[in-house]
Order: sequence, then C-alpha cells, then structure tokens
Amino acid sequence: MAEQPRITVWNEFRHERKNPAVTAIYPDGIHSTIAAFLREDGFEVETATLDEPEHGLNNEVLEATDVLFWWGHMAHGEVADEVVDRVQKRVLEGMGLVVLHSGHFAKIFKRLLGTTCDLSWREIGERERLWVVAPQHPIAEGLEDSFVVPQAEMYGEPFDIPAPDELIFVSWFQGGEVFRSGACFNRGQGKIFYFRPGHETFPIYKQAEVQQVLKNAARWAAPTPARPKTWFGNRKEPLEQISSEERA
Amino acid sequence: MAEQPRITVWNEFRHERKNPAVTAIYPDGIHSTIAAFLREDGFEVETATLDEPEHGLNNEVLEATDVLFWWGHMAHGEVADEVVDRVQKRVLEGMGLVVLHSGHFAKIFKRLLGTTCDLSWREIGERERLWVVAPQHPIAEGLEDSFVVPQAEMYGEPFDIPAPDELIFVSWFQGGEVFRSGACFNRGQGKIFYFRPGHETFPIYKQAEVQQVLKNAARWAAPTPARPKTWFGNRKEPLEQISSEERA
Amino acid sequence: MAEQPRITVWNEFRHERKNPAVTAIYPDGIHSTIAAFLREDGFEVETATLDEPEHGLNNEVLEATDVLFWWGHMAHGEVADEVVDRVQKRVLEGMGLVVLHSGHFAKIFKRLLGTTCDLSWREIGERERLWVVAPQHPIAEGLEDSFVVPQAEMYGEPFDIPAPDELIFVSWFQGGEVFRSGACFNRGQGKIFYFRPGHETFPIYKQAEVQQVLKNAARWAAPTPARPKTWFGNRKEPLEQISSEERA
Amino acid sequence: MAEQPRITVWNEFRHERKNPAVTAIYPDGIHSTIAAFLREDGFEVETATLDEPEHGLNNEVLEATDVLFWWGHMAHGEVADEVVDRVQKRVLEGMGLVVLHSGHFAKIFKRLLGTTCDLSWREIGERERLWVVAPQHPIAEGLEDSFVVPQAEMYGEPFDIPAPDELIFVSWFQGGEVFRSGACFNRGQGKIFYFRPGHETFPIYKQAEVQQVLKNAARWAAPTPARPKTWFGNRKEPLEQISSEERA
Repeated sequence: MAEQPRITVWNEFRHERKNPAVTAIYPDGIHSTIAAFLREDGFEVETATLDEPEHGLNNEVLEATDVLFWWGHMAHGEVADEVVDRVQKRVLEGMGLVVLHSGHFAKIFKRLLGTTCDLSWREIGERERLWVVAPQHPIAEGLEDSFVVPQAEMYGEPFDIPAPDELIFVSWFQGGEVFRSGACFNRGQGKIFYFRPGHETFPIYKQAEVQQVLKNAARWAAPTPARPKTWFGNRKEPLEQISSEERA
Repeated sequence: MAEQPRITVWNEFRHERKNPAVTAIYPDGIHSTIAAFLREDGFEVETATLDEPEHGLNNEVLEATDVLFWWGHMAHGEVADEVVDRVQKRVLEGMGLVVLHSGHFAKIFKRLLGTTCDLSWREIGERERLWVVAPQHPIAEGLEDSFVVPQAEMYGEPFDIPAPDELIFVSWFQGGEVFRSGACFNRGQGKIFYFRPGHETFPIYKQAEVQQVLKNAARWAAPTPARPKTWFGNRKEPLEQISSEERA
Repeated sequence: MAEQPRITVWNEFRHERKNPAVTAIYPDGIHSTIAAFLREDGFEVETATLDEPEHGLNNEVLEATDVLFWWGHMAHGEVADEVVDRVQKRVLEGMGLVVLHSGHFAKIFKRLLGTTCDLSWREIGERERLWVVAPQHPIAEGLEDSFVVPQAEMYGEPFDIPAPDELIFVSWFQGGEVFRSGACFNRGQGKIFYFRPGHETFPIYKQAEVQQVLKNAARWAAPTPARPKTWFGNRKEPLEQISSEERA
Repeated sequence: MAEQPRITVWNEFRHERKNPAVTAIYPDGIHSTIAAFLREDGFEVETATLDEPEHGLNNEVLEATDVLFWWGHMAHGEVADEVVDRVQKRVLEGMGLVVLHSGHFAKIFKRLLGTTCDLSWREIGERERLWVVAPQHPIAEGLEDSFVVPQAEMYGEPFDIPAPDELIFVSWFQGGEVFRSGACFNRGQGKIFYFRPGHETFPIYKQAEVQQVLKNAARWAAPTPARPKTWFGNRKEPLEQISSEERA
C-alpha cells in the first residue's frame, strides 16, 4: 500500500446521463463528486465506470487499488461475471470495498455476503437520521451521536445480510422504519463497508457528514500492509515433531 | 433442567405500591402479570421481590431457577452486592437471565456487561415500533417483521453496551431515535437477553407481541442441559504425549 | 416444520464405490451411516447422492427438508449450478445446512460464505483433539471439555472463512496446527454449521462424540417455526404518519 | 490523542524482585523491557507499578494515557478497587487497554468482561505455536501465518470469557491444548486486547514476534480521536417533530 490509500471510485454512470434531475445534481457523475472530496483529503483517486472496456476494472487497475468504492443501481445485471470474479479475488487478497446505497444489490456485494441483500424501500423523500452505535470505531470519527439526511429514499429492515462483523450506524426514517445503514464485514484479507445513504435524486454526497464517513471508511478499509501471503494447500510435513512410536 | 424451564420473575415492586397510576395497571405487581402469562404457556414460575429477605433470591431459589427475569427501576442501589454476586455466579454456571426495560441500570446487568449501560431517554408516551433484524432467531418466532408499542418511554442510542452476540430487535421512536431493543449476550454458560419495552406507566406487558417475545426468550435462555462442569485450574500432566527428547 | 426435524443427508458417494479402503469402512456410503444414527435419535431421515437425477435434490425433496447434511470431496465441480442455486434459496428461506469435513470446498458452502474456504491440510493419520470454546451452546450439549479423534486428516489455519457468528470447537493437531472445527453461520433465515471431522479413510462418523455433535447440530439448525414471510420490496405508504406540513 | 499514542506500561513488579530466576531475565522489571521496545518504535512511554502511591495510576497519569498495558500475577487482590474503578471509567471513555498473560485474572479485566476469566494451565515449559486466524486485522500486521514461543506456560480452553469481538490468534500447545490467545473486545469507547504469551520465567517479551504484536496492539488500541462526548440522560424534547394530533 502507498502512504495514502489509492482509491478507485466505480460508478454505473447511467442515471446521470439519462435523468435530467440527476444530471442537475451530479453533472459529472456521482463518481466525480466522491473522487473530488476524497482527493481534497489527500487520497490518490481514480474513477471507473460501467461503459468503459472491462468496466474500467482490468487487472492493472485493481492491482493499483487499495480501496474500491462501488455505486450501481439500474444496471447491476450488465456487470460482467468475469469482472465480479476479479473484484472478489482482489477483496479476498486484501483490497477494501465500500459499497454505496443501491449497491446492496450489486453482484459483487451479494457474492461476498452470500444472501439476497434484499430490503424494503420507499421513495418519497422523507427524513433520515443516522445514529452511531459503535462510538469507538474509526468510521465514526468526528461525528456527533446522530446526523440528519434531510431527504432520502427509505430502506427498511429486515435487511437480508449476514450479521455484520461490526455495526456502526442505524438509521431512523420518518415513515417508521429502521435500517442497519453502516455495516462492516471482513472477507478473506479484505474489509468491506456498506453505507446506505446516497440516492441519486438527492445531493447526499455533497453533505459534510456523509463525506466524513466515506473518508473514514477509505482509511479503515485500506489493506493491512506487509503480511506475507497466507499459505494454503498440502503441508506434507508436520510442523511439530511427532515421536516415532506415536506415528507408527 | 426440568422438562419446562423453571422461571423466577424478580421485581423491585416499588412503583406498583407507591404510584397509583402504576397500581391501576399492575395491581399485583409487574411480576405477577409476567408470571401469569408464562404459566399459561406451561412454564413453572415463581416470583421474588426486593423487600423479601435476601430479595427472595437465596441459594435454594437460584438453584431451582433455570431462567431469571429481572425488573428494577428506582431502587437498583438497594440490591445487596452479595445477591448480585450470587446471581452472577449462577448465570456463569448456566442460568438464563432476561433483563427488562429499566433493568439496563441493574447492578447485575452492568456487572455482567462491564459497561455503564447508559442511554438517553424521554417520557412523553410516544409510539415505538420494534423491527426484527434476526429473522432466523428463536426469540423472533411467531412475530411479524415489526410490531408497535402504542405508548412507550423512549430509550435512545448510543446505548453503552458491548456489541451484542446477537441483535434481534431494533426500535424506532416517533421522536427520532433508534435503539437496540432486543440483544443477546453469552456470559460463561449463561444466556442473557435484554428486552427494552416495559415502562411501568403503560400496560406493555399485557400486549400479545411482548408476551410472545418473553415466552420465546424464556425458552431460548434456558440452560443447555447435561454438560459436565468445565474443568479449570492446574492440569499438571499433558493430555498428549510429549516425547522425552522434546521434554528434556 | 414437523415435530422432529426432517433431515436429508446428501453424499457425493464416490469414494465409497472407488476406493476399497473406504468401502471397508462405509460399505453403504457415508450417508447411510449418518442417516442411521440420526434415525436412532428419532429424526426422520432421507438420503440423496450426486449421481441421482438432479443429485436427488429436486424441489419437492428440498421443500420436505428441514436440515440438509452435505458431504462431498472429489467431485465438487460436478454439482450443477442450478442445484446450488436451489439449495441456497432454501437455506435463505430457513432450511438448516450442516457441512461436513471436505465440504468446506463445496460450491454451496463457498456460495453462502463468499470466501475461498481454503485451508492447509496433511494426510498422515495424526491425532486430533477438539476443544469446546462455547460451553453454553446447544451444539456442545453432552460433551466433555475436549474429545479425541484418534486418526484424522489435518486441516490447518488460516481457514479462509468469514468470522463465524458462533465458534463452538477448536481443534488441536499432533503436527502443530489448530483449526476452527465447529462454526455456526446465519444466512437469511437459515442456520449453517460447519463441522470439520470426517475423513473418508477413518471411521470418524462411527465415533460417539462425533455422532453427538451431529445430532445436536440437526436440532440446532432446524428452522425457527411459524414466522410469516419477510416482506421485501416497495412499501409505498409510510407505516407512520408523516404530518402534511412535514411532507410538503 | 497525541500524534503517537502515549503508552503507560503497568506492572505488578513483584516476581522480578522476589524470584532470582525472574530477576535474571527482567532485571529492571517486565515493564521496563516492554517500555523499551515500544519507545524504539516511536511511542511515548511511561511506566507505573503496584507499590507506587495509587499504584502509579492517579487521574493525571490516566488522563495522559492513550493505551494502558497491564501485567499482574501474584498480587491481583492488592489492586485497590478505586483504582480499578478509575481505569474502567477511562477505558469506557476511550483509553485502550492491553492485558498480558496472567492479567486474565486482573480485577480490571474481569470487571470489563463480566466473567470469571478462568482457564486451565500447566507450567512445564512446553512449546506454544500461535496461529493467525484474522489475517486482515492490524494486530496481525507483519506476522507469518504462525510463530513459535519455544517455552511457555500452557493456558487451555475453555477460557471463560465472552466471545471476543474479534479473534486474532489461537495457540497450539505441545501437551494437547488450544487457547484463544489474541482477542479484541470493545467496551464503551475503549478497545481492549488480551494477549496470552508472557510468563515471567521465560524471556518471551524479548522475542521479535511478540514485540511486533504488542506494537501493533498499541496502535490499534489507541482511541479514535475527535468524537464529541456521547450524550446520555433525559432528552426531554423530541428530535423529530411529532404532530400535535399525534401527540394529543
């Protein structure tokens, strides 16, 4: 890993080109907005999008990525299985993964979690309030006990995910639902953070608290440096002596 | 353990004798109401209260208890430390413990969890909605995805507890808060369930869903039968042969 | 769920027909041995094998199964993806899954866990000692603090699985390794138990302690009855009233 | 928190003054050895011992400590309860705590975990091999899959602790036992790491891998900076508007 984690922000980048309401908020795409505030914080940031060759995620790109951010919504099915395989492999080797909002249905997220990742939802622009439930966690750094997203798409429980290894945020919604909105999972040597806020028709990624969370997450998800590769396979010789009488 | 878990419902039993509004709801005490619906379900149930000798929790009572329910609020400080020691010992040996509502500040709960168990609260009788977040768990048996407590005292996050071993319910409150309302902890051989609803000025323990949760919890928290006692202390001889050349 | 969980024991059933040393131990297949001791304990048990149509796991069979046991080793790649899809779906709906020994590399296990499930191994017939690390857990019922498998294939850490929701057994091996040998995972409404012992060239499934663990696991993994189906999708109307001034 | 975490290494400091075999290994006390290698790594390090006034842990010392290391063995009972209260309070506020070897029976460790922290043990100087089971974790940074402590006091399972929030190391012992030797717990805003190796009659804290683990732990356990104080208590006014018709 470099001194500062190297980030690649991946975006489906369809809504922003098709829906004028989304274009108005994110004229250069959600990825550009996220890349910009991460760069301001000192991260080295690249972007990649669905319609590039190999979705912009060839082997060199992934090798040079410490943490991959993922935003997708309407075209999850168009992501090639080979690319999903490749991303999964890199996560298990140690690359961090930050999955955003509707990315809960991304192939790579379902692949790594093993469940449907289904939920209930409602799109009336109601208020959301996110509460910190793990105040000691680096992803909660700098945040008050709760903060408000003024207008959000609701996601409601039950959320069909495995119990997170660490639960950081729980959301309250005006319409009566709650949601595990910030959840950490470890898979292989990789750290995964799911963060719920971020619907494309609201300027959520321009909000200071949301940006704070994502900067914290980028640092947290960066690989632990310098571990030798784990050894798998047939270890023919015992590590410890087995006395000959025992072994006979 | 007997065929059906033997329950002791412990109650501070002060509010019901001092506050006419509480007497009106629970004339024979919260413990009697809880004992009654557990008995209807086939459990063998005793009760014990603060003002009995040794708070009704002498060694024989605890030895004959598979699961202890605990309701306290205004007199946590009057519970004798020797009784807390005794209850803790029994939990670590396998007795289940179901801690109710304001019992979050009970000495025994803080003792077993190691934290302040502090929280924020508000008493305006607002609506609470409890969501199931662990649909596979026996404590969620028979419940819809969510249910409403029409009037409740609010408890809000951050709730200063260790991350639960299993999180079963998360509450939504009308005033904007969320809370981890149903949480399982294992300590020693004992299973602990904290369940938030139950303020004394609302008839919450008369509500069918709440009773369902507490019946489920009584079954879940009952000790795993028939394990021999765990062996602690100086095990002088190796279990496995260490060859003489090695040992020399 | 029926009164007693209905079990289906699935076996690849190749080693027993190809390798005389295995035939000598399990003449009717590993599945028959497992089915027999589960039946003795009162479970209703069916079996299914790889070379049956749809590997013996069509929809009716899975619908009638509360807990599926899985043993495979040399032919994981021959299991059809449609069958894996079907089993995964049933697990997420609540069917229990008990994965045995070399089943750590089964498609269904990797699918549900999201990792490589890789490990190190050695086949010299060394001693294994399994230690209980969760004495309160129903899967440890009736067991001493540790028990020995006299001759085993070694599996060693790091084991590339997500941190288990509950860790029940840790193995010691004569040659110097340790292994998380009994591990519980929740996925959707389904409970999964991985149990390490069981190599085909040793009569491990004839050992009393191993049988005890698998009977305990069958009970533990059975679905929680009577929950209504979780509701997913677009919940257009808020559950809680949003005042008109707020909503405007 | 300062740029580098400020460490206080606390030691009972009795064995080193009473037992010549221990003096020979740690002439200036175990605390001095630990302090020295942490200082070499850039940490600011102070030490404190049992026989100083207030055991060297008055309020100013604790306020100026980001991570407290704790080594005790023969005199746990002499640690004053007021000091234990004070240390617990600071941990819950965010100070890290690294508990070493026989510190499993320290009052502060039992206080924070809620269990007996009992175990089995044997003192014949057998070999120990520690395995990494959480390769992604910062405390495993720089380590091989396993490393050997040539001569160790054995600690064996069952270890009566709550299931760790993260399990990092599992030990193998020559005599047949295993042990959860590296375990993380979160309590309040504080991070706790228990690390098993370190018996006073073997030069274990002079071993490179052990020093690596403790340096990693010091960094990991340092408080998350800059969170405002969590708000507890009566929050009289709802955060979210409750319409008057609702509230009536």
